[in-house]
Amino acid sequence: MANKKVVLAYSGGLDTSVAIRWLADQGYDVVAVGLDVGEGNDLESVKNKALQVGAVQSYTVDATKEFAEEFVLPAMQAHTLYEQKYPLVSALSRPLISKKLVEIAEQTNADAVAHGCTGKGNDQVRFEVSIQALNPDLEVLAPVRSWGWSRDEEIEYAKQHEIPIPIDLDNPYSVDQNLWGRSNECGILEDPWTTPPEGAYALTNPLEKTPDEADIVEIEFKQGRPVALNGTTYELDDLIQELNSVAGKHGVGRIDHVENRMVGIKSREVYECPGAMTLIQSHKELEDLTLPKEVAHFKPVIEKKLSEVIYDGLWFSQIRDGLEAFLKETQQNVTGFVRVKLFKGHAVVEGRKSDLSLYNEKLATYTPDDEFDHQSAIGFINLWGLPTKVHSMVNRNGVNV
Amino acid sequence: MANKKVVLAYSGGLDTSVAIRWLADQGYDVVAVGLDVGEGNDLESVKNKALQVGAVQSYTVDATKEFAEEFVLPAMQAHTLYEQKYPLVSALSRPLISKKLVEIAEQTNADAVAHGCTGKGNDQVRFEVSIQALNPDLEVLAPVRSWGWSRDEEIEYAKQHEIPIPIDLDNPYSVDQNLWGRSNECGILEDPWTTPPEGAYALTNPLEKTPDEADIVEIEFKQGRPVALNGTTYELDDLIQELNSVAGKHGVGRIDHVENRMVGIKSREVYECPGAMTLIQSHKELEDLTLPKEVAHFKPVIEKKLSEVIYDGLWFSQIRDGLEAFLKETQQNVTGFVRVKLFKGHAVVEGRKSDLSLYNEKLATYTPDDEFDHQSAIGFINLWGLPTKVHSMVNRNGVNV
Amino acid sequence: MANKKVVLAYSGGLDTSVAIRWLADQGYDVVAVGLDVGEGNDLESVKNKALQVGAVQSYTVDATKEFAEEFVLPAMQAHTLYEQKYPLVSALSRPLISKKLVEIAEQTNADAVAHGCTGKGNDQVRFEVSIQALNPDLEVLAPVRSWGWSRDEEIEYAKQHEIPIPIDLDNPYSVDQNLWGRSNECGILEDPWTTPPEGAYALTNPLEKTPDEADIVEIEFKQGRPVALNGTTYELDDLIQELNSVAGKHGVGRIDHVENRMVGIKSREVYECPGAMTLIQSHKELEDLTLPKEVAHFKPVIEKKLSEVIYDGLWFSQIRDGLEAFLKETQQNVTGFVRVKLFKGHAVVEGRKSDLSLYNEKLATYTPDDEFDHQSAIGFINLWGLPTKVHSMVNRNGVNV
Amino acid sequence: MANKKVVLAYSGGLDTSVAIRWLADQGYDVVAVGLDVGEGNDLESVKNKALQVGAVQSYTVDATKEFAEEFVLPAMQAHTLYEQKYPLVSALSRPLISKKLVEIAEQTNADAVAHGCTGKGNDQVRFEVSIQALNPDLEVLAPVRSWGWSRDEEIEYAKQHEIPIPIDLDNPYSVDQNLWGRSNECGILEDPWTTPPEGAYALTNPLEKTPDEADIVEIEFKQGRPVALNGTTYELDDLIQELNSVAGKHGVGRIDHVENRMVGIKSREVYECPGAMTLIQSHKELEDLTLPKEVAHFKPVIEKKLSEVIYDGLWFSQIRDGLEAFLKETQQNVTGFVRVKLFKGHAVVEGRKSDLSLYNEKLATYTPDDEFDHQSAIGFINLWGLPTKVHSMVNRNGVNV
Repeated sequence: MANKKVVLAYSGGLDTSVAIRWLADQGYDVVAVGLDVGEGNDLESVKNKALQVGAVQSYTVDATKEFAEEFVLPAMQAHTLYEQKYPLVSALSRPLISKKLVEIAEQTNADAVAHGCTGKGNDQVRFEVSIQALNPDLEVLAPVRSWGWSRDEEIEYAKQHEIPIPIDLDNPYSVDQNLWGRSNECGILEDPWTTPPEGAYALTNPLEKTPDEADIVEIEFKQGRPVALNGTTYELDDLIQELNSVAGKHGVGRIDHVENRMVGIKSREVYECPGAMTLIQSHKELEDLTLPKEVAHFKPVIEKKLSEVIYDGLWFSQIRDGLEAFLKETQQNVTGFVRVKLFKGHAVVEGRKSDLSLYNEKLATYTPDDEFDHQSAIGFINLWGLPTKVHSMVNRNGVNV
Repeated sequence: MANKKVVLAYSGGLDTSVAIRWLADQGYDVVAVGLDVGEGNDLESVKNKALQVGAVQSYTVDATKEFAEEFVLPAMQAHTLYEQKYPLVSALSRPLISKKLVEIAEQTNADAVAHGCTGKGNDQVRFEVSIQALNPDLEVLAPVRSWGWSRDEEIEYAKQHEIPIPIDLDNPYSVDQNLWGRSNECGILEDPWTTPPEGAYALTNPLEKTPDEADIVEIEFKQGRPVALNGTTYELDDLIQELNSVAGKHGVGRIDHVENRMVGIKSREVYECPGAMTLIQSHKELEDLTLPKEVAHFKPVIEKKLSEVIYDGLWFSQIRDGLEAFLKETQQNVTGFVRVKLFKGHAVVEGRKSDLSLYNEKLATYTPDDEFDHQSAIGFINLWGLPTKVHSMVNRNGVNV
Repeated sequence: MANKKVVLAYSGGLDTSVAIRWLADQGYDVVAVGLDVGEGNDLESVKNKALQVGAVQSYTVDATKEFAEEFVLPAMQAHTLYEQKYPLVSALSRPLISKKLVEIAEQTNADAVAHGCTGKGNDQVRFEVSIQALNPDLEVLAPVRSWGWSRDEEIEYAKQHEIPIPIDLDNPYSVDQNLWGRSNECGILEDPWTTPPEGAYALTNPLEKTPDEADIVEIEFKQGRPVALNGTTYELDDLIQELNSVAGKHGVGRIDHVENRMVGIKSREVYECPGAMTLIQSHKELEDLTLPKEVAHFKPVIEKKLSEVIYDGLWFSQIRDGLEAFLKETQQNVTGFVRVKLFKGHAVVEGRKSDLSLYNEKLATYTPDDEFDHQSAIGFINLWGLPTKVHSMVNRNGVNV
Repeated sequence: MANKKVVLAYSGGLDTSVAIRWLADQGYDVVAVGLDVGEGNDLESVKNKALQVGAVQSYTVDATKEFAEEFVLPAMQAHTLYEQKYPLVSALSRPLISKKLVEIAEQTNADAVAHGCTGKGNDQVRFEVSIQALNPDLEVLAPVRSWGWSRDEEIEYAKQHEIPIPIDLDNPYSVDQNLWGRSNECGILEDPWTTPPEGAYALTNPLEKTPDEADIVEIEFKQGRPVALNGTTYELDDLIQELNSVAGKHGVGRIDHVENRMVGIKSREVYECPGAMTLIQSHKELEDLTLPKEVAHFKPVIEKKLSEVIYDGLWFSQIRDGLEAFLKETQQNVTGFVRVKLFKGHAVVEGRKSDLSLYNEKLATYTPDDEFDHQSAIGFINLWGLPTKVHSMVNRNGVNV
């Protein structure tokens, strides 16, 4: 009988290298898939390593542009910050990676898809729910969760099977990175009273080492999409990379977060998202100018829900479709310019302008150009305050007094 | 027939000085009330000036401690930020000032209460609704809104009636300040593309002039209340003042906001809230450690509503009572310490700890001390993903595919 | 100088007949517009009466189908019930009427648009905001609000100007009706302790006079749209009319509501909405079968907001566009059949089925066919209950015990 | 070594009788607890049967009054209806039963607590999370879920161990009942297209057999609590029982619901809640009269969350404490009378009155007594519509046109 075939998300690291061999031991033909979603992986070397440790086939996919367009853009427009802090770095890439795995599984007639997550994080949920959403006939395997080895046992197995041990094996951090940022957990960070050590960071300068001269960046948005920096047009992924670089230099976007995971525990994570935080803040400022009050006050309800939906692994779902449909309507007038000062860890929006601005100087001014009808306020307050007045009249002599 | 009596909120500035005389012209005996809610007014001089320009009585009230305890504390615990930016500086003081005016009106048997607002801002609404809530029998007068004069006409009237003209009359800004911060509007700020000039700020250093050495502050909270800085116990208002000073020195808490007013227009405001922003961020970090997930995810709904209720002048209302009752329940375990680094405009929380922490290192760790049951995740994901799986199975061969 | 021209929404009743003359007295050429939005107006007679009392032109518009398609359908799909009771009968027609008035104003080069509302209701707000949204250059006139006459003064004016006095002038009710239902206020209804008299109702039988035999109706929905009754295809407006008739016969859809108006007062209204209530309930039952849980639990947030947006006169707005975009996504799978028993004031849904049903008997059954994995519940509960367990462990020996 | 001791929730039925023996086989001393939460159990016979089939101790608890006061009352005040339909009958009793089990476990020094649920329902989650919340040191056992037998295997085991087989063993329904209603699932109900058979109901008459004469009931509420029927004071549980009887006679409160369970599946349930539905509707009507608009519009957000929290087994939690604290504030003025007509399956509220009513006839009336200032509406609409007007002006000539 032929072996079953499994498509594995392969990073080139120890866990997934061991997984290739372990899955082969279980009787699977392993198809490895190395992906880049903006972290700048050396895909060729990943591809070769997979074959070296036992994969029967090895694919590579550069999904950076798709990641920017389909995943990062709506997240930026919705200012998605889980628990008001975390810009969903890994949570955004998991559904895209799942989609690529499923596509390759369908092309190669595979029986199963596998990921390298343990049983404790959010990513296992995101992978498995995404894969089921896309193709419920595929089996999902989680070799690292299944074998349940200690670190020492895993290394022993690797040595026995001549799997190369990474030279930075004693790196105390567990890192994930993509176009939208970088996350870091474990090690000394596990005590939330401890200041994160500089070694936890890679994309941003510490405040103490940021330049003493600011960079001023003018970002142009068209219908909610950032299209140019300082007058130069960029593709979306390039624009984000450029901001990661310049904002990172100024120390923008460090986040230290004690968060509530899906699996019922709190964990402490450190994130670096220089481009993400610069864009989210800039975009919000342009919305402050161009969204009507009713929209500005309700959109955060959508944003919060979308953040939770994405964090919770429900990217491929009708609820996300609905939330994004709302979002899309709101972006039609988010067109204009934002001037941002990048300096000492800040992305300070100093100015915003739009041909579709709802800010009306003639109405807002306190100069003699004022066109606002001050006497209208009297009638407005009469009716706005009427329920309060009636309530007060009723209760003054009532049970409450 | 005896004159009617009106109690006027008196700042000592031109508008309310003219209002005293104008109200007297309308046949009112004017009782002036000078208040301090943490801005450090020279109440004695305000009191005398009121008598000088025509008040029949002049009261002063230092309401700073009441402001801190009854108004600022719940706002801080609820992280109230209108439109996610503005910490409600003036919106918090208006109901307290209204309460003091009503108390004095009732003591002096006055017929009316008056404020110095124009017809275009939010504060007129907050004063009038608050006063009606507290005593619906009192008439409310708004002399500045009623006379509708241009600046020149007002000055002409002042000169005719020997009302002193302030020396900073050509100050282009309109400022309000209290314990929780300082707001600034008008003048050059009316163009939202323009960078706010340094003259708009008074409580905070520009980033360029902040110290090159950080201050580290350890804030102790007991049941959601900040009680000590670096081990020294403070009364609440003193603690906030101390943080205003030290965080202001480091440039923390500048806010530049294009906001939606109650009266239907957008306006551009500049705020400085060094103590407020430091405390709100620190308090949230301690909540991240001590609130259960369900509370952490629902409390923002309450926070948003409370922000809008306060901004919209509904402080004295059953809805605020209800929201604060929820809030109070959430604060029982918000006890512990937060270590904040004040540096270059940031209040970076570097550590948080609590005897009531729900962060459990034994569950969170990736070391061999791990007590989390990884296999439980399998059952969890099966049920969590089941609706998605069923939906996918139904739709694969259905109308959507 | 030529007269200014005003387009008036004309019902044929006393108020708007007097308004034609009164506007003419003010120097306006009055263009009358008689509309039908499903109430079955005799438009020809309305048209002639307008000319008779002084209009220079008289238009009629049957907007029933547009009302059904563009206004009623999304309201039904969103189950919009203001304060969980009122299906927005008049609130839905006002924006459509405004749209027709503006169209005719633009065709006839009119300067202004006028409505017949008083200063106390919601409809004045809905008309004026809708008209401003569609064409902010048009002036809006509210003659009835402007003249401020008592009933007797109005009749006196009518007699003087030979305006026909309706024969039912002492009708104690104020009624508005359209395809989606009928509203009634005033008179004896103003005491909320009083049972509404039978005279307040016109579309529904009292329970005491309903048939003793039920009608069973099978409603077919396609993507959220009701398309057939008992196997017969209907256009939307005809389907609603048919349900108004048969459900009205069985006494379905009487609503007695003490509601909060926009203008700050509570009022008591009586509504009859037999077709509306039958469709809303039936549609929800089909959603219970076909919407994923996440959508089913969040859609009510959208529904509530949309109800308030429509009630508050903001039909023509970006916020409604966004809410409807969400709504539209949710309707893609709302396809199937609902069997409703109309009997004694009830529209009881007795069965629902769909090819896209997410109800899975193999998973739900307690028979031996059960395919649900009962052991998954153990892992699920472990993680679901983990925050509670940690919270309990922390607090048992902590400050809370 | 001594046996471990387990406290089992014992109903007297087959499952929990078999569980006693099975647990004893596993080496446990079983302490049985028979409870009544308003369903009228014959506790004495339950107690004896437990001892007969092998329990070492047998307790009985009548918790009906505590259920009414602590669980049903807030649920009624919050109008908790899961998915807008289900009044949380079983979901409310599970935490109370858990509490009683834990109390007896602590008194008897037991090691574990056990329930008779399978692995597919919501109740297993509610029991286990409640027990962990109250005493995380107690082990929780679920014998029925553990043994995983088919019905035939269970009966075989019962026969072998001389456990009495109930005479209604082929009853196709699975029923749970308490003071707040009765739930029914399984059997023919599993096809959601099938009309529920009359055999599924026990507390309510079918519409066809209800009396042709209505009962009119006047319910008095004090601060949100129903205290009297037709002028006669009742204890809360007696008042609900009385309404169950009279409203049930009139066929009020049948609910047929396809609902989303916690464990990821949809199920179809039939409920009967005559007293619950009568009280919830009556209480809401009194709130319509006595709650300020802001509270009336926000309370549903709290209600929805509370419904989900209770359904999801999180009764003993800080989130419920917070939601109930909000709720309590809202009930202070919910004092007055509601007149309800019970007839043909309806609980029609025909009148409501309160000394604290915020309905003001002087403001609401259209008679000459009108005290409402109609001209205030002009200013109100000017400002309310201003954002729309500005938006329209901007967009008419902008990208959107």
